[in-house]
Amino acid sequence: MTLLIAPEVPGGFRDYLPVEQTRRTQILRTIEKVYQSFGFLPLDTPEVERWSVLTGNEVTAMKIYKVSLGDKTDEPLALRFDLTVPLARVVAAYGNTLPRPFKRYQLGRVFRGETSQKGRYNGFYQFDIDTVFSGSMLTDAEVIAVIWSTFQALKIPRVTIKINDRKILNGLAEMIGVGSKANILFQILDRMDKLGMEEVTKILQRPPDNRLDETALNLSDRAVETVQEFLRIAADSTLPLEEAAEFFGNSTQIGHAGIQELQQVRGYVQNMGVPDDRVVVDLSVARGLGYYTGPVFETSLDDLPSIGSVFSGGRYDGLVGRFANDSVPATGASIGVDRLFAALEELNALQQLATTATQVFILVFDQSSLPKYLQVANRLRENGLATELHCGDDTAFKAQLAYAVKQGIPLLVIGGPEELEKGIWQVKDLRTREQAPVTDTMLVAHLHDLLLNQ
Amino acid sequence: MTLLIAPEVPGGFRDYLPVEQTRRTQILRTIEKVYQSFGFLPLDTPEVERWSVLTGNEVTAMKIYKVSLGDKTDEPLALRFDLTVPLARVVAAYGNTLPRPFKRYQLGRVFRGETSQKGRYNGFYQFDIDTVFSGSMLTDAEVIAVIWSTFQALKIPRVTIKINDRKILNGLAEMIGVGSKANILFQILDRMDKLGMEEVTKILQRPPDNRLDETALNLSDRAVETVQEFLRIAADSTLPLEEAAEFFGNSTQIGHAGIQELQQVRGYVQNMGVPDDRVVVDLSVARGLGYYTGPVFETSLDDLPSIGSVFSGGRYDGLVGRFANDSVPATGASIGVDRLFAALEELNALQQLATTATQVFILVFDQSSLPKYLQVANRLRENGLATELHCGDDTAFKAQLAYAVKQGIPLLVIGGPEELEKGIWQVKDLRTREQAPVTDTMLVAHLHDLLLNQ
Repeated sequence: MTLLIAPEVPGGFRDYLPVEQTRRTQILRTIEKVYQSFGFLPLDTPEVERWSVLTGNEVTAMKIYKVSLGDKTDEPLALRFDLTVPLARVVAAYGNTLPRPFKRYQLGRVFRGETSQKGRYNGFYQFDIDTVFSGSMLTDAEVIAVIWSTFQALKIPRVTIKINDRKILNGLAEMIGVGSKANILFQILDRMDKLGMEEVTKILQRPPDNRLDETALNLSDRAVETVQEFLRIAADSTLPLEEAAEFFGNSTQIGHAGIQELQQVRGYVQNMGVPDDRVVVDLSVARGLGYYTGPVFETSLDDLPSIGSVFSGGRYDGLVGRFANDSVPATGASIGVDRLFAALEELNALQQLATTATQVFILVFDQSSLPKYLQVANRLRENGLATELHCGDDTAFKAQLAYAVKQGIPLLVIGGPEELEKGIWQVKDLRTREQAPVTDTMLVAHLHDLLLNQ
Repeated sequence: MTLLIAPEVPGGFRDYLPVEQTRRTQILRTIEKVYQSFGFLPLDTPEVERWSVLTGNEVTAMKIYKVSLGDKTDEPLALRFDLTVPLARVVAAYGNTLPRPFKRYQLGRVFRGETSQKGRYNGFYQFDIDTVFSGSMLTDAEVIAVIWSTFQALKIPRVTIKINDRKILNGLAEMIGVGSKANILFQILDRMDKLGMEEVTKILQRPPDNRLDETALNLSDRAVETVQEFLRIAADSTLPLEEAAEFFGNSTQIGHAGIQELQQVRGYVQNMGVPDDRVVVDLSVARGLGYYTGPVFETSLDDLPSIGSVFSGGRYDGLVGRFANDSVPATGASIGVDRLFAALEELNALQQLATTATQVFILVFDQSSLPKYLQVANRLRENGLATELHCGDDTAFKAQLAYAVKQGIPLLVIGGPEELEKGIWQVKDLRTREQAPVTDTMLVAHLHDLLLNQ
């Protein structure tokens, strides 16, 4: 006897069983329809990419899964950690054959080796939209409109979309002269609402621990005051863009460019029908990734702020440059699908979704009538009704009924031999528990009626 | 300056760009609808599985991709090579919480390291249905009905579904006493139509090359005659099951059990509405995989026989036993999606499919009218029309028009400033090249009409 294998999924990964997957698919198709309604088109790329493509041949802090056949292969492979780098590869590879702008959506699993926390996985789905080859702020505004429309379609109207612009943050970085350490500054700002001003000030002033410490900003008192003033505008102002313009004065051009971009975006967004008070400028939003170059967005649910941002992104005009020697403008956003589902679950937005696509269950009530059951099942399917005929080993009436109820199948068709002689079926609506005899001729119409009246 | 990275997909893998992916999605949704119409439900499992789960801790000839984080992990991981082993794991893991029968479908990429031939990939999609926990031949018949309905839905009516039963082949193996080498015999039979009787006879008679040669059958003259007689029935008989029953006589019980299974399957399939002449018993069909235990099926396209089987499977009552100490009955079939698409392409069945889901393109004709364009785009979307508003950098009229035409978007909405003052849009149907002025009030209805009348 061979030893039994444990039937376990790898740590940090998960299955989606039919009830959950049925609900997920409904949500994902709703989102897809919104993406399509703005003219985005589907793209699919492999989970496996070349190591050099994913990392740009640079050392990375990201824990990336290596893939190999165990023999000498000429290219080291890895599992993708997002859908943006593969998009950049596609843009560089197919450049001239792609439409301009190139508007694509992509749903796919991505893989990260970080030790998984509760609610975080090593394999998780992202569902992205991006527009490439356009530097127009219309495209950034459109991303925001897509985010807004997505939550309207999901019947989660109370969302807040925070926007900022990396150029504004770059303006601040220029004013205080942090140069190459700008990203460290942005990450500190991003944590302002968690840490508070006092703690942030300490971090800004911290001198290097040793000569190799590259993470310390060691800001002067004057620079710290500038950052504090910026954070005060970010936190308190009702007109942050206007105050930021005053704050920048003559000291930075890029900062003003960022302000102009956001003003343009806000104007477009209004015309796109997104309510004014749902799009909030927040000058402390930075987004972690280093590649952003313009507007950045994140979306929080007003009724569940603790879950963080569920749909975020921004403009990244430099990423394609890894593969091709020219700057390709691009902007987009990504849904963390598993986090979104956790949120929808907490907001009780999943319960009303169907647990099965099956509409009719035909009981095998009498073995000798099986040919009639098979024929009617075929007829119902030909008339557009998703119909399951019981084909399990347990043919007890009770077991079949329990199965149909547990699966959430709404309608039951039962045929006893005597009634079938007269061309009569019993139809039971498991939602209302009402049962009625129906002639064979009227069966299809009756079932369609019941489904419409639900 | 850093060296540019080549924007290449790994060898043996491929991208699906929007036009192709749009068409693939239409086909896959059609197939999904057929699966659902029989009561199959969606399942999703990770591409990454534990090595032991995939291989059963046995040495395998399959070239499996290893996955690792490069540090000491406690479990060796790998990429799945099919969707059946992960299903068996799910059944063993969630056994008692699953419905019985458990009918699931799954679409996903699988990974095999074999050096890729033309038209074959290292990463390719499979789209499977399986029913677990039922030993009833109804489930096998249903798989055949699903195969049939799938091709009807794809408008490929001329298919032939060849069926056989592993128990019949086991009966033959028992008669000639090949015992543990039965799988070698089956693989030889499977190649009968390629090799011919003379060549097959030679292979059956071949003595071992050396003491370690386990692949030689070294059959006696009498055993060879028995196989030849079986193959004659397989090739020539119009009543293969009846002749096989006579052929088996009193010499094998399992052979007769297989005949009975196929007779049952044929009876059910007829009642399910599959035309009798489309389901053909072919006693030489074995299917490569070792785990089959009952009926096996394969599907060829009458108008493209060279492409081989595009939808095949069979009953495998032992596979779950790798994880759990009991025999769990299961049957199913798998579409090789990429092979199916190659076939559909050759049969010109893809050309009539839409290349985009976008229905309306709004030209940015006049920058100062942009707010009006944005508002109308929003209104069209709210009325269910997938509407792209031009947001590229090239705002030349010609470039925008060329984009819409290339994308295959059917309808164009153009608003010049003077006409907009009077509430008039120009609507151009790019399929018929007809253009007409439409009032703002009638715009939505007019666009819907044009789409219906296509």
